[in-house]
Amino acid sequence: MSDLAGTTARRGRPGYDRDQILAVAVAVFNEQGYDATSVAQLAARLGVSKAALYHHFDSKEQLLQLALERALGGLEGALDAHATGEESASERLGAVLRGAVRVLVDELPYVTLLLRVRGNSVIERAALQRRRAFDRRVTALVRDAQREGSVRADIDASVATRLAFGMVNSLVEWYRPGGPESADQLARDVLAVTLDGLRTR
Amino acid sequence: MSDLAGTTARRGRPGYDRDQILAVAVAVFNEQGYDATSVAQLAARLGVSKAALYHHFDSKEQLLQLALERALGGLEGALDAHATGEESASERLGAVLRGAVRVLVDELPYVTLLLRVRGNSVIERAALQRRRAFDRRVTALVRDAQREGSVRADIDASVATRLAFGMVNSLVEWYRPGGPESADQLARDVLAVTLDGLRTR
Repeated sequence: MSDLAGTTARRGRPGYDRDQILAVAVAVFNEQGYDATSVAQLAARLGVSKAALYHHFDSKEQLLQLALERALGGLEGALDAHATGEESASERLGAVLRGAVRVLVDELPYVTLLLRVRGNSVIERAALQRRRAFDRRVTALVRDAQREGSVRADIDASVATRLAFGMVNSLVEWYRPGGPESADQLARDVLAVTLDGLRTR
Repeated sequence: MSDLAGTTARRGRPGYDRDQILAVAVAVFNEQGYDATSVAQLAARLGVSKAALYHHFDSKEQLLQLALERALGGLEGALDAHATGEESASERLGAVLRGAVRVLVDELPYVTLLLRVRGNSVIERAALQRRRAFDRRVTALVRDAQREGSVRADIDASVATRLAFGMVNSLVEWYRPGGPESADQLARDVLAVTLDGLRTR
């Protein structure tokens, strides 16, 4: 049995820590779908035995839960950092959108997995519930910005939130690290379109 | 064997025409994934025999091809209608975006299927190629609008196209016919955010 957690490689195999195992598992989930992936396939991809994998993780479900936590925790952190404060609601909304783009860029595979969750299990339904709670908090921020007059009031706050995050989330479809757009440039572009639009004045 | 194309129901079973079979197939593909769906499952959902299904369609692949054609043909039609013309490039861009929202609303299950295609077969790769050709034509329109000075030039035209269509395409995640937003209202909202942004001036 290979030494999954070992700091020294045995028989040419690398030792993996929990984060590295999680990263490989998430890559495989994104490639072939979570439901279609077996623990045996994950072990094969890592070049370790199933027993070695189970030494670190209780189940495939636990890997999913940790991966979704990483994405959701990041997005909630970006919201917590700016949901309240002394700045105007529209400035805080901009900061939340910028923070969300950063989380998406930094945790791309984890957010990709989160956005594909359809609610097929207890863990997936809990993740969807947290996404909805996140959306409600952003919607409240948009509503505050509408009240202060800094965001247009002719669009329903929940529709505006969905459209803005629709744009942010669509980055997982085409953004790849190391491409021509840096993460900072991307965040600036998303903010520019969401807040000020494409049209010149 | 039931009469799949029959105008009269036999033994209580409805007759289906090709469009109705396609609609049911697309619904099943979206629910459980195209790759995971068998012809036997489609026949079972329709309450007909596999042979009856094969009377109308050669294969599962043909159903996929027809479904993707409906989505792509609709989107390309919206672009063809406005890609050239006497209006300004930014007006034509707005018309293309409005047309794309309409296609998405009218052909929601077909566009949903198209957006989930990952290139696992010849048919899927051909669809991805048509999507890329569509994106390139919209990007050229954005570039024309930048040249005429009506669209901001500080965002790369292909990034602007991807962000705008990221917002449009995200509608498949939450828009449901008969909801509080009408298709027209939705198209107005998407255009308002994409072209003018959320921020008041």
